[in-house]
Amino acid sequence: MKDIRVGIVGATGYTALEAARILVAHPHARVVAATSRGETGKSIAEIHPSLAGRCDVRIDTFDADKIAGQCDVAMCCLPHGASAETVHQLVTRGLRVIDFSADFRLSNVELYEKWYDVEHPWPERVGSTAYGMPEFFADQIRDADVVANPGCYPSSAILPLAPLVKEGLIETDDIIIDSKSGVSGAGRSAKVATLYCETNESIAAYSVGVHRHQPEINDLVHRISGTPVATLFTPHLTPMDRGILSTIYVRSRSTARKVMDCWRHCFADAAFVTVVEHLPATKHVAGTNFVQMTARDCDHRIVLICAIDNLAKGASGAAVQNMNVMFGLDDKTGLV
Amino acid sequence: MKDIRVGIVGATGYTALEAARILVAHPHARVVAATSRGETGKSIAEIHPSLAGRCDVRIDTFDADKIAGQCDVAMCCLPHGASAETVHQLVTRGLRVIDFSADFRLSNVELYEKWYDVEHPWPERVGSTAYGMPEFFADQIRDADVVANPGCYPSSAILPLAPLVKEGLIETDDIIIDSKSGVSGAGRSAKVATLYCETNESIAAYSVGVHRHQPEINDLVHRISGTPVATLFTPHLTPMDRGILSTIYVRSRSTARKVMDCWRHCFADAAFVTVVEHLPATKHVAGTNFVQMTARDCDHRIVLICAIDNLAKGASGAAVQNMNVMFGLDDKTGLV
Amino acid sequence: MKDIRVGIVGATGYTALEAARILVAHPHARVVAATSRGETGKSIAEIHPSLAGRCDVRIDTFDADKIAGQCDVAMCCLPHGASAETVHQLVTRGLRVIDFSADFRLSNVELYEKWYDVEHPWPERVGSTAYGMPEFFADQIRDADVVANPGCYPSSAILPLAPLVKEGLIETDDIIIDSKSGVSGAGRSAKVATLYCETNESIAAYSVGVHRHQPEINDLVHRISGTPVATLFTPHLTPMDRGILSTIYVRSRSTARKVMDCWRHCFADAAFVTVVEHLPATKHVAGTNFVQMTARDCDHRIVLICAIDNLAKGASGAAVQNMNVMFGLDDKTGLV
Amino acid sequence: MKDIRVGIVGATGYTALEAARILVAHPHARVVAATSRGETGKSIAEIHPSLAGRCDVRIDTFDADKIAGQCDVAMCCLPHGASAETVHQLVTRGLRVIDFSADFRLSNVELYEKWYDVEHPWPERVGSTAYGMPEFFADQIRDADVVANPGCYPSSAILPLAPLVKEGLIETDDIIIDSKSGVSGAGRSAKVATLYCETNESIAAYSVGVHRHQPEINDLVHRISGTPVATLFTPHLTPMDRGILSTIYVRSRSTARKVMDCWRHCFADAAFVTVVEHLPATKHVAGTNFVQMTARDCDHRIVLICAIDNLAKGASGAAVQNMNVMFGLDDKTGLV
Repeated sequence: MKDIRVGIVGATGYTALEAARILVAHPHARVVAATSRGETGKSIAEIHPSLAGRCDVRIDTFDADKIAGQCDVAMCCLPHGASAETVHQLVTRGLRVIDFSADFRLSNVELYEKWYDVEHPWPERVGSTAYGMPEFFADQIRDADVVANPGCYPSSAILPLAPLVKEGLIETDDIIIDSKSGVSGAGRSAKVATLYCETNESIAAYSVGVHRHQPEINDLVHRISGTPVATLFTPHLTPMDRGILSTIYVRSRSTARKVMDCWRHCFADAAFVTVVEHLPATKHVAGTNFVQMTARDCDHRIVLICAIDNLAKGASGAAVQNMNVMFGLDDKTGLV
Repeated sequence: MKDIRVGIVGATGYTALEAARILVAHPHARVVAATSRGETGKSIAEIHPSLAGRCDVRIDTFDADKIAGQCDVAMCCLPHGASAETVHQLVTRGLRVIDFSADFRLSNVELYEKWYDVEHPWPERVGSTAYGMPEFFADQIRDADVVANPGCYPSSAILPLAPLVKEGLIETDDIIIDSKSGVSGAGRSAKVATLYCETNESIAAYSVGVHRHQPEINDLVHRISGTPVATLFTPHLTPMDRGILSTIYVRSRSTARKVMDCWRHCFADAAFVTVVEHLPATKHVAGTNFVQMTARDCDHRIVLICAIDNLAKGASGAAVQNMNVMFGLDDKTGLV
Repeated sequence: MKDIRVGIVGATGYTALEAARILVAHPHARVVAATSRGETGKSIAEIHPSLAGRCDVRIDTFDADKIAGQCDVAMCCLPHGASAETVHQLVTRGLRVIDFSADFRLSNVELYEKWYDVEHPWPERVGSTAYGMPEFFADQIRDADVVANPGCYPSSAILPLAPLVKEGLIETDDIIIDSKSGVSGAGRSAKVATLYCETNESIAAYSVGVHRHQPEINDLVHRISGTPVATLFTPHLTPMDRGILSTIYVRSRSTARKVMDCWRHCFADAAFVTVVEHLPATKHVAGTNFVQMTARDCDHRIVLICAIDNLAKGASGAAVQNMNVMFGLDDKTGLV
Repeated sequence: MKDIRVGIVGATGYTALEAARILVAHPHARVVAATSRGETGKSIAEIHPSLAGRCDVRIDTFDADKIAGQCDVAMCCLPHGASAETVHQLVTRGLRVIDFSADFRLSNVELYEKWYDVEHPWPERVGSTAYGMPEFFADQIRDADVVANPGCYPSSAILPLAPLVKEGLIETDDIIIDSKSGVSGAGRSAKVATLYCETNESIAAYSVGVHRHQPEINDLVHRISGTPVATLFTPHLTPMDRGILSTIYVRSRSTARKVMDCWRHCFADAAFVTVVEHLPATKHVAGTNFVQMTARDCDHRIVLICAIDNLAKGASGAAVQNMNVMFGLDDKTGLV
């Protein structure tokens, strides 16, 4: 087969770098274009020195016609709002797009505009876009022109929760999600809050009760399971580059054993979900697209624990998995 | 006044080092003896090179008579079981002891023997020993011959919870404590699990539902508030040397504002408890004996967040604070 | 005695925080004023949450008259160039100043202007200002109106080198200094290069052959020893908050043993310099004002190794030590 | 082609894990056997949970006949001494072996026995074994029955030095190699010295002047260039999982520009050596088999800087590269 030609729009951040790193080793895809507002003319390896000798694509300013002409698919790594606008331009030129932003993840525009506080530039597509989680939406992804790549925290919560809610194994009204993320989730823009000496040797909660991934979790678990849920979501900034560990406290009259059986059944054909007996650490999935999850009985609750790499399964790994599905490749192609 | 002469029993671990580091800067105390089974004859600075030029006490084998003769107080940094035996020997020789182990923390021997799986060598003292949390037990500590120094996780949970339970501000039957600790909490013995490359760049839960600090939390909150509570406690190993952050999810018909008012009132005279508006990070208290706590409203629950340094307020700082109380000094003497 | 009243000028960075942290525990000094351009009206604890409950000074805009009226000494934590201007204003109002910048460290204006590429606003004071290293300049510091607080890297290189050059124990023409610093040395301004995910899990050299601390090292070793030296200095950014380790390769016909004897003799009365037999790690001095140094024979060279905490002995600890000397206190007062 | 069947002998350490992680993604090789003394019967994923769902080989006790029967090649990850014995058993049974130990790296038995302080069990093979650095020894590796996989530090020093010595660009008598390694280089056995809290937030030199990789560097640079060299090698333990940065100070009348030209010419066909203009950080090569090197003029010396991943190009990546060469595959197969 001919290589899938990939364009990376918004190429300076960590998710773009991670996408490029995966794609340079992909047997059937290659990066052919990369855009950014600020670094035009430089090689992508000048922005990301870990690509030196491995990828020599030049950074260009964004031109929808040009990208649509050069590429089979675009990975759009722009902030919300800006992203929808760009996705619209590319899709109307016939390009397939994997959108890393939150712009097309939610089920309705009202929810989006309430939480993201911007007017959506392409409201009619909100709610009808494939959510890029092949474990539940492979059929929609296969034929999609736009795939809404999932948020990092939502990936670590939806995967364990949705099957259990769907099967009625857990109660839906008091789900507590305590998540711990590596610092790369905060992006690559210069901020005091994510300087090394601010976050190193320290853990802290942030955005308690007001993080935008909470409505995404609730919305998608509802969409997948058919049942509305209410979660309390607290993210924590953890002194490590990568990884998300979500510790989820659910009320249930079932058992951890049955929870794991339910997962094993649900994810029997999933390429990257591993139900494990050990307590997963983020290190066990670091640098991979794998998800490790387990459950433990604790008095009146069951504790679910799910580990992913926020940059891989939580972002760019999922994007490549989605690309594989979109282009008829095996999910695992080019992914570890 | 004359310096308080301190003996450190079991001097090779991190809590012993932290005690020594605090004491070398204490204006009214000094380390005069240190014991260990394995390193006899060496200077304590050979075991802990950060003490070089600052403390030249020689490590000796433990001899109860000798320690009792040389010291005004012993800090006993031994494992549970072994500790109670040693404490007994010292106390019967008239020495006052601050015990870092769990041996005298709980209210009854049955609870202790159930969780620690050993026969208690001095059962009659269990339940009548001062718990070394001056915020609640200063009167008992002042005159105590033995002070049971609190566990690290319990310190981060009891301090925020006890006043709220006592005042009836929160429900007591579904308290979820998600705690994150630095690696020093696991001690200084050679184990693969706490090698740098195992714990670095990774976060993981451990001892889910079976950690020995859970009964200590429940027992002490009960003892302080008069009300039994049921907590679900999940500790996590976090890639940092020091610090504990406990994120506590409580059901309540009150508000975060009232919770913080309750704390401010309860801890008005506490030397080291700071109720803060910001979301505390473990870094904000690192290397200090301070506790930072805050609360946030989240739908039907209130999220309590408490940060301490596990080696300081969670161990050796608390021990020095207890020593100050025992010897009539201001709580803050020699502590930062 | 009455407390020394300290003003911190430029209070938002890491050296200002470290100065404040040391001073809140100092028995004879207290912070009475703090200035910054951007954060006026806030408490210093809002800028530095680790000071919560420990220091409640308000940030004010800089006013030379006001600071001179309120304080006995100012610690000036401003960038070079800006600092000299401010120091001039304060000194002419009769205030004593400890200047953290490089503005008054070097012996002549030409060297300064060559390396710092600015016109010096107060050139007549360059070269006649006390260099704040009490190990060599205590007499000048005692009576100084301005003390030039040493650079962090220079502290780790001058202390081991100067006595050896003075005593003729080493050759002076091919001294190689390979230094490794924690990230706090790069300051607290928002830059991509010092984001957590850029510097974590990585070590790299920077400013190879062009770092401004090289002329400071050469100049001061010359000033102290009377002999000109040529060093090759390479700094490395190391994934840790604090600490500098300098590994120094010198040609010598002497021995490591004689080197250590020379140091022991030279630093016999120095409060914070410890000559050690072990190989010092930065952790051994972290959070302290101590210097640990050792030497090893290696074929035709001797390897000198020196560890300091860049924020303590490399900046704010040295500043407090200088303040102690200026005000007739013991060097160690308030320092650990 | 049929998959290369690989056996991993000594499967519990970090280099074994890294080899397995690379091989599970290799398109033409797979792990078919794994041995260890202590963990027999367990799945390799129980020892290394990051392999869960990716590799289910069972750990077996070592049996030379069995391994020789099951495999096309063995990767022998045993300590020196023990390794040579095992390699001998496997080779005499016709198996090709990549040996991770130092047992067959050096040119003569005397040098080996002096530095490793053991009697060599198979002395006749010392000196005639292919050194596993395909950049210089591809022809020997291609047909080898045993390949001596290079040491981690030597890889970071030999690659930049050997071409320069060979071309006479640098002087050979005062080469100073200051190397900084991540902690994984110290292995996975339980030792206090490599506990998280010992090495985190700290950098220190170790084995100054007595590290066994120094004779390996000297010996191999000599073997490759034909010229004897004398290096002074100082390793440093750096708080990171992976990576080696070697900063090498050489005397030269040449220039950094010519040094880089020499490298570019020498490594024109090398799959993994990248000569870069930026100052390489270990992060730039982390998780990859790539080498980044650059040079800078500094007065009378040139500073060479070389970054590798100690577990990849410094161990298991090199091993897979060697395997590729041995079995006629492109060097890059299965490597990133």
